[in-house]
Amino acid sequence: MSEHSPVSNLTTEQCWELLHAQEFGRLAFHLLDEVHIVPLNYAVDADRRLVFRTAEGSKLLGLTINDDVAFEIDEFGDEEAHSVVVRGRARQLERHELDALDQLPLRPWVDTAKFNVIAIDVDEINGRRFELTRPWTHLRPPHDHV
Amino acid sequence: MSEHSPVSNLTTEQCWELLHAQEFGRLAFHLLDEVHIVPLNYAVDADRRLVFRTAEGSKLLGLTINDDVAFEIDEFGDEEAHSVVVRGRARQLERHELDALDQLPLRPWVDTAKFNVIAIDVDEINGRRFELTRPWTHLRPPHDHV
Repeated sequence: MSEHSPVSNLTTEQCWELLHAQEFGRLAFHLLDEVHIVPLNYAVDADRRLVFRTAEGSKLLGLTINDDVAFEIDEFGDEEAHSVVVRGRARQLERHELDALDQLPLRPWVDTAKFNVIAIDVDEINGRRFELTRPWTHLRPPHDHV
Repeated sequence: MSEHSPVSNLTTEQCWELLHAQEFGRLAFHLLDEVHIVPLNYAVDADRRLVFRTAEGSKLLGLTINDDVAFEIDEFGDEEAHSVVVRGRARQLERHELDALDQLPLRPWVDTAKFNVIAIDVDEINGRRFELTRPWTHLRPPHDHV
């Protein structure tokens, strides 16, 4: 009998379902020779690109210089967690490309001016389901024994 | 009267409080010329390093080749969200350095073999509080008007 693994892979379709269901994730990008990470709101468009808005700043600068990015979403309950990681290429959309996004639920949670729209073309998508042991929710640590 | 900003900075101490209070975040790292991101459990040690366990794999390989990393945690409720972003240097700890970590609440949520301990020396720490507008929780969009 093979040992049960607490980590299993999600199918690509399960990954897309999670990406569609959520609207908040974290973008990792290059800024020159540094790696940076930032939380942001996103949406999935009809071509299965991840799109988000951004103001001018280090994020936009970094993506302009190097379009290689990674993006992560996760969710977890008491018994299990899911995480989806995407790798792809980021590109600032031209004005004429924005009309197609009008129907997209790209709703920034924070009310700041963000005039640029970035789309990530997804090259790789991987998702995992973790069975959470969290032993401390079931056991007292040894030094607590009386 | 200055305009109220929906985004404000956390103090460094508020950032550390959040890092201490949580145990789950996302690590962004270089793997050769790519940026990768992975969710993981972590703890803060007595020297204010972020420590986590990892098995052999691309994460450990990437950190060995390039120690430049970023790390993010976040939490959000209905009205506001917090995010803390750390940048630093990752290093695999030697065996003799591990004893000091015995008391650390470094509790992997998932029961897999992870024999290597990585510590991130924090160079930069930044936190932000976001006031969430989420207008769709208060307003119906125009095309829903009757």
